[in-house]
Amino acid sequence: MSAEEIRPDSLEKALAALREAIGEEHVLVDDRTLADYGTATFHTDHVIPAVLRPGSVEEVQQILRIANEYKLPIYPISTGLNTGYGSTVPAKSDCAVMELKRLDAIVEYNAKLGYVRVQPGVTQEMLFNFLQRENAPYWMDATGASPKHSMIGNIAERGFGHTPYGDHFAHIAGFQVVLPQGDVIRTGFGQFDNARATEVYRWGVGPHYDGLFTQSNLGVIVEATIWLMPKPEYMQFFACSVGRDEDLSLLIEAMRPLRLDGTINSAMHIGNDYKVISAIQSYPYAQAGDKTPLPQEVLAAKSKEWDCGPWNATGALYGTRAEVSAARKRLKKALKGKVQRLQFLDEKLLWVAEKVAKPYQWVTGLNLTEMMKMLKTVFGMTRGEPSADMLPSNYWRKRSLPDVSADLSPEKDNCGVLWIAPVAPTSGENAETIWHIVRDTMLRHGYEPAVSITLLTERTIDCVVNVSYDRDIEGEDERAMACHDDMLRQFCEVGFYPYRLGIQTVGKMPPRTPEYERFITGIRDQLDPNRILAPGRYLD
Amino acid sequence: MSAEEIRPDSLEKALAALREAIGEEHVLVDDRTLADYGTATFHTDHVIPAVLRPGSVEEVQQILRIANEYKLPIYPISTGLNTGYGSTVPAKSDCAVMELKRLDAIVEYNAKLGYVRVQPGVTQEMLFNFLQRENAPYWMDATGASPKHSMIGNIAERGFGHTPYGDHFAHIAGFQVVLPQGDVIRTGFGQFDNARATEVYRWGVGPHYDGLFTQSNLGVIVEATIWLMPKPEYMQFFACSVGRDEDLSLLIEAMRPLRLDGTINSAMHIGNDYKVISAIQSYPYAQAGDKTPLPQEVLAAKSKEWDCGPWNATGALYGTRAEVSAARKRLKKALKGKVQRLQFLDEKLLWVAEKVAKPYQWVTGLNLTEMMKMLKTVFGMTRGEPSADMLPSNYWRKRSLPDVSADLSPEKDNCGVLWIAPVAPTSGENAETIWHIVRDTMLRHGYEPAVSITLLTERTIDCVVNVSYDRDIEGEDERAMACHDDMLRQFCEVGFYPYRLGIQTVGKMPPRTPEYERFITGIRDQLDPNRILAPGRYLD
Repeated sequence: MSAEEIRPDSLEKALAALREAIGEEHVLVDDRTLADYGTATFHTDHVIPAVLRPGSVEEVQQILRIANEYKLPIYPISTGLNTGYGSTVPAKSDCAVMELKRLDAIVEYNAKLGYVRVQPGVTQEMLFNFLQRENAPYWMDATGASPKHSMIGNIAERGFGHTPYGDHFAHIAGFQVVLPQGDVIRTGFGQFDNARATEVYRWGVGPHYDGLFTQSNLGVIVEATIWLMPKPEYMQFFACSVGRDEDLSLLIEAMRPLRLDGTINSAMHIGNDYKVISAIQSYPYAQAGDKTPLPQEVLAAKSKEWDCGPWNATGALYGTRAEVSAARKRLKKALKGKVQRLQFLDEKLLWVAEKVAKPYQWVTGLNLTEMMKMLKTVFGMTRGEPSADMLPSNYWRKRSLPDVSADLSPEKDNCGVLWIAPVAPTSGENAETIWHIVRDTMLRHGYEPAVSITLLTERTIDCVVNVSYDRDIEGEDERAMACHDDMLRQFCEVGFYPYRLGIQTVGKMPPRTPEYERFITGIRDQLDPNRILAPGRYLD
Repeated sequence: MSAEEIRPDSLEKALAALREAIGEEHVLVDDRTLADYGTATFHTDHVIPAVLRPGSVEEVQQILRIANEYKLPIYPISTGLNTGYGSTVPAKSDCAVMELKRLDAIVEYNAKLGYVRVQPGVTQEMLFNFLQRENAPYWMDATGASPKHSMIGNIAERGFGHTPYGDHFAHIAGFQVVLPQGDVIRTGFGQFDNARATEVYRWGVGPHYDGLFTQSNLGVIVEATIWLMPKPEYMQFFACSVGRDEDLSLLIEAMRPLRLDGTINSAMHIGNDYKVISAIQSYPYAQAGDKTPLPQEVLAAKSKEWDCGPWNATGALYGTRAEVSAARKRLKKALKGKVQRLQFLDEKLLWVAEKVAKPYQWVTGLNLTEMMKMLKTVFGMTRGEPSADMLPSNYWRKRSLPDVSADLSPEKDNCGVLWIAPVAPTSGENAETIWHIVRDTMLRHGYEPAVSITLLTERTIDCVVNVSYDRDIEGEDERAMACHDDMLRQFCEVGFYPYRLGIQTVGKMPPRTPEYERFITGIRDQLDPNRILAPGRYLD
């Protein structure tokens, strides 16, 4: 049964049953709503028959049961801020969107063992404010995306942030999940009603399977237990850059042993000049004489203005003062003679720097005030503080940069954004291979190769690439997608697959092994024989 | 189709096909072999029709295909040293044992990123020796069990050791698995034939599911990628004890924040007096006047002789010298006034202590030589060195302690051993609840409550309990099992479930939620419709 086969009379019956189940006001079918939910940051023409807004786990169960009865495919989203990967838009046409925003309880906070249980409507901002109010001795981990994005949404996509708890899926105890046919299960020890270690011991007993419900369409996560990081006594932020594009490899190789042995125990980010510039300002159309992509001389001028190198690394060290000092020593030693301007910054120094930014700027001519703003944001993220300051970077190719606000909607403002993020074993050579694909392909297609290379885990780099464009310009949707597809194809050809997939990749991934297909299809046949849950989402 | 329904003619045909597939010499049906493989460290009466010894992944596939054809259940073991949990004995009767010892290749060693790919026949000892030969700048993690036990076998049971990489299932990149019907898949990015980050990035893309093949009967792990820990610059071992039984809670509460914030970043073990004594010597029948369980006055005398308290903690600190020194300071501060004799020991000091043990012993009367031996073993384990020194502890109730050797077989020597290890959120109260169940139940049944409480993860304690007895004594098999079952029932009743299950628990666990049963049975229906893989192993 595929999405395309639903008949209109069946849809009407389904909607009637849904209205009965969750209340008329939570079954939205007006054109305005459907158009909004149908808008991503790139072209899609998927038809959405309805938006459903359940208010409880029981209502989620009812929706899925009705969906099975009427063969109506359901596409669950948490808050739908999956910008650059599809936002609120289903992976295939004719799916009703089920938005879980109303399930927004912080169900439990355990101050003694450092964890929270949250529902999908709980956003970065909500959790952050909650922990502040509780005066919790813990940090959450935040991403640079919207403060209004769902904690669970990001875990389900296996996203990452900036603290030692930055690998989000690695720092949970498990889920409560509604299965496609309406059953509710708890993972791990939650298979037993009276289990008491479910929130602290992830593996439980028997087969371990919580990951089945991430990056998949095999269940709807309605609760997650998120572990929190004890606030360290001290942290120091660091930044450095290399002077030549070809020194990327050198930088990665210098950092590799430090990330592997835990001297650096959080995701470290290395952004190129394009990335830094596009994070601070919008496209300099005037200086570029209205030409795109960015002329090399403008890039050079902007690099000078913002004082950045071809590659710019930022990261943080955590621990006691003595530990941080020891780590700092090792970092300095490893980078000696290889990088420019290795600088360390702690909270106190940041405060001082902020005070002197203006006078310093008068003397040096550097725009320190703007740079300080960005620095404060990045610094805050290494402490798990969500921020809306990165949102305007989605507006890079728009004619003007909007004011910072958590309510910015790149989707509604016709921003063009397409993310892809291939993963490779950490090595200078692999970083260069990826970078050269990105640079050559994007420039050829007429886009700025703004990338950040993240030392994601002890042994892995992840290159986060973004095709940024203006959807208001005729033909750009097609051109940008061609650029995206060209890169995706090349990444897959060299064996560096993305760590997550947006709906723009549906039907474009190379074939998986037939054995894997049989395995995963078999599981799906069991859990979702009617294929009502998110068809096309990771699994066709 | 259950194991009991196999008909003899069908078995003969299956064996003929198996001989054809893997060679006559690898299909063992002689009485001696079948009796050996049918012997655990407790009573079982499971009939084993054959022992199969495949020599390649292809032969494993062939075995499973033949098994499906003839409905012959297959029970895979790696090296079968699952002592106290069933050893080589299948969870149900009439299963052919498939031993994977001959698949013993270290398929890959990556010196740059610190990992190995190994097959199930690779033992602790083999990997350790390999890394020594390669002069690898990495440590493996070892358990206190036999040096001849399989690395994969332990990962599959989600076992744990003593270094920061001690949670074995948490430090792998994934598996190659033969599914019950004979297909081979690789987890994570391995769904793509040309993927290059499979060994370094665990989650891959799409649903994550490698845990399905741990503690289960859903597939046969034929290869694992194990991450290795970079050798730290320095490490310091520490030990301390508390003077009164009731101070256990105090000790756990003092350690809790240090384990949570990473000051202690490896599993820390707290053994009681019974545990320490039974690790060093066999039952003092003479002093006890042949009475069991151990009389309190003998316990007291032995505690004095071996210089141990009611609870004795050991652990280690890892890092640079500066980091270890900082951690040591915090540890001292947290334990001040709460513990006795907090002592630190590094490699150099251990060497010195060894030299002076003998003269010191003459002066103090303490048996330092024996204590040094145990200390060296435990010290080595905090550095990932496998050791056979713990094996004799399985002989506690035997009349004599054998000489240490990796070839000791508690199974063949009629040792009685039943392990059970409940998990709880870290708290003094939970530790006491478990300890009181163990103490009262074991003493009532006539056994010594030898336990170690492990601060297993940042938020979890695991109490490792062992019913140790002499199988040569009439009626002991039944009495020991009654004691085991009594504890298991109480642990489950209070909600502290074991982190793993031996075959002695089949049919004894409380019911799981019906939703979970439907979910997991559905997956099993798909992967193993004929129920040929290890019936009863975690899943009925």
